[in-house]
Amino acid sequence: VVVVASSADRTPRTDRHRVVVIGAGFGGLRVARGLADAPVDVTIVDANNFHTFQPLLYQVATAGLDTDDIAYPVRGIFRRQANVDVRLASVTAVDLDGRRVHTDRGEPLAYDTLVVAAGTVSHDFGIPGVAEHTLPLKTVSDAVALRSALLARFEDAALTADDGGGALDVVVCGGGPTGVEMAGGLAELYQRVLARDFPRLDVGGARITLVEAAGQLLGTFHPSLGERARRTLERRGVEVITSAPVARIDEGRVELAGGRVITAATIVWAAGVRASPVAELLGVELGRGGRIVVGADLDVPGHREVFAIGDVAIDPAAPLPQVAQPAIQGGRHVAAEIVRRLEGRPSEPFPYRDKGSMATIGRHDAVAEFPSGRRLHGIVGWLAWLVLHLVYLMGFRNRANVLVNWAWNYLTYDRASRLLSTRP
Amino acid sequence: VVVVASSADRTPRTDRHRVVVIGAGFGGLRVARGLADAPVDVTIVDANNFHTFQPLLYQVATAGLDTDDIAYPVRGIFRRQANVDVRLASVTAVDLDGRRVHTDRGEPLAYDTLVVAAGTVSHDFGIPGVAEHTLPLKTVSDAVALRSALLARFEDAALTADDGGGALDVVVCGGGPTGVEMAGGLAELYQRVLARDFPRLDVGGARITLVEAAGQLLGTFHPSLGERARRTLERRGVEVITSAPVARIDEGRVELAGGRVITAATIVWAAGVRASPVAELLGVELGRGGRIVVGADLDVPGHREVFAIGDVAIDPAAPLPQVAQPAIQGGRHVAAEIVRRLEGRPSEPFPYRDKGSMATIGRHDAVAEFPSGRRLHGIVGWLAWLVLHLVYLMGFRNRANVLVNWAWNYLTYDRASRLLSTRP
Repeated sequence: VVVVASSADRTPRTDRHRVVVIGAGFGGLRVARGLADAPVDVTIVDANNFHTFQPLLYQVATAGLDTDDIAYPVRGIFRRQANVDVRLASVTAVDLDGRRVHTDRGEPLAYDTLVVAAGTVSHDFGIPGVAEHTLPLKTVSDAVALRSALLARFEDAALTADDGGGALDVVVCGGGPTGVEMAGGLAELYQRVLARDFPRLDVGGARITLVEAAGQLLGTFHPSLGERARRTLERRGVEVITSAPVARIDEGRVELAGGRVITAATIVWAAGVRASPVAELLGVELGRGGRIVVGADLDVPGHREVFAIGDVAIDPAAPLPQVAQPAIQGGRHVAAEIVRRLEGRPSEPFPYRDKGSMATIGRHDAVAEFPSGRRLHGIVGWLAWLVLHLVYLMGFRNRANVLVNWAWNYLTYDRASRLLSTRP
Repeated sequence: VVVVASSADRTPRTDRHRVVVIGAGFGGLRVARGLADAPVDVTIVDANNFHTFQPLLYQVATAGLDTDDIAYPVRGIFRRQANVDVRLASVTAVDLDGRRVHTDRGEPLAYDTLVVAAGTVSHDFGIPGVAEHTLPLKTVSDAVALRSALLARFEDAALTADDGGGALDVVVCGGGPTGVEMAGGLAELYQRVLARDFPRLDVGGARITLVEAAGQLLGTFHPSLGERARRTLERRGVEVITSAPVARIDEGRVELAGGRVITAATIVWAAGVRASPVAELLGVELGRGGRIVVGADLDVPGHREVFAIGDVAIDPAAPLPQVAQPAIQGGRHVAAEIVRRLEGRPSEPFPYRDKGSMATIGRHDAVAEFPSGRRLHGIVGWLAWLVLHLVYLMGFRNRANVLVNWAWNYLTYDRASRLLSTRP
């Protein structure tokens, strides 16, 4: 018997299978979307009321895009999907036995199936001073804070006419895609935009340094692409230091393992991530980087009704990179798996398909490699990167705006998003 | 003898006539632009690093546009004008005798000519509770805070399933253009956007009330247009109360002079403004609303080298409305006047030309009246309003983005700018 509440359009039906999804990132959204036609009620829990298109965070930090361009309201995404509800809250506890998720606002959420898609947070690897003296780049707030910090340094220097002593210098720690993209974006911002905005400052004399612990940039790519990224960055004025783990960080000062010290008013931390603290709340086995250990069909051993996907999860037998594709494909798989189980059909293992990886180094240059072994770089790689990111951005509106902003940046070297949200 | 500094491109020439402009609003920008070819050095002082297109603030508050669409970096505006410098600071004192402007950051600014274009701030007219319990709509921060407050009410109601007791209700105090536009924008936001985002809340039952002290809305317009605005707002679900001065405001509670009380979780204060506190720093005669009294050529009596323009100034012999046109035309006039004086030519009085007034009431409807007596309303008025505002927005990029956003809103009734910047 289906119990229909008196006000059917305003009250969720309580007899349906309840799916709770923690996280509105790439993975969480795909789970909810994949359940559009399933006889389930989905609740997405996230601490923000918007989805963040993380691959373009560095563009917000370097004033190329505004927050709206890369963030999209979750309720808007599911406006036409009646079986999705949203809770704006932080998860405080997960009761696997009682099948409830506790949050900092509202009653606990009971579930029949739980999907943990909470992603990652910035990680300092225990290096002293990282938390106190660096700016991370994991959230929209981080990106806005970083942009404001950079612009405030310039306004301060303009006021005091003091552009020496590292006042405008930046060190980016971490030579993965985020660090490389950030360093490339900074070089453009400085040379093309801020040098014109602040003609009386010696912007050309400001140093942008990229520091990487390993021997090559973009460690997950073929060495030839890492080498290409280095050459491109160096040509654009970025000093690249590899094989140089960070030993400690103080105010305005990065000390490398060899003893070398780099001073800079702004230090960006893009050196690594670990699983969201939500992973620990489950009390289950965690793997490398604090990620939840999952089986071949992405469920948690001993808890068939709990799945973990994307960056927060790891299948030790087949570890995947912490980028968008595993989350997207994992989300689709879990949605299908939930439907299969409801229909009494057999489970299927997660068939991850590697579609390749990309990283942009700035205007006209990006690197990409595909499972076939094919590698792209330069303008061709950049165009491929551009098209792919536009296609994946949520919603037409954002896509159109991003296109307008990029076209404008490209044609004019101007960037309009350099609003200081707080006074220096 | 012209003294050229050793590094000519980085140091201002110190022998030139120094113009300090306080405020980067419509008036201040036009002064600086008008001096592009004059042998002067201009310094614009503003507490923000961006110009705010104030007529569209209500669009940010009602999630139709993002901050970037209506704010433009001042340094970007003057990128190609080498004689303009910018100081990001608040004015703390003006020394008319010593001809110096003191700010909260950096050395005092010496001037040969001072232009005060500091605009207005929200004013409570001494009504108890306004400062503590209402949200103003004068700055970009105000608009973002108002948008966040509105969205947070909905998220709270979604969590507690409590949408009664005024939790979603809004009272807008003030039936001038800002209040009318805000009420119209709110009605659209509620009915077209939030009702879909929160299908389980009784959004249709939420009350939006517009309260005006005088007998008609849009008091500066012809009564027929005020009446038309009232009918349009009422048809869209806004309760309009005229001849009802606000007596006092408490948390969630507006008490009108007649004793009537309206409860609402959100109270917007758009009832009036007074001159920026900068006006008082001059120690000269102030007129109605704390505005600096100026003569026929916009200079301050007894201080020929000091001009005041736009909302912060008043010529008692010819008071002008506090809208964009007097500021824009005043800025152009003062720039020309500075050049005339430098060239030893006679002063000219400010020849204000009334170009008419406009206010939008929401989708498809706006009112406009022109000095000829011609009045527009409905879709024709709205199209006129749309074109005018696009033309006046600073910079192509913003214009293109605004057009994309408006087109998207128009076609879909969606609004993407509803990002909660802080947690409820």
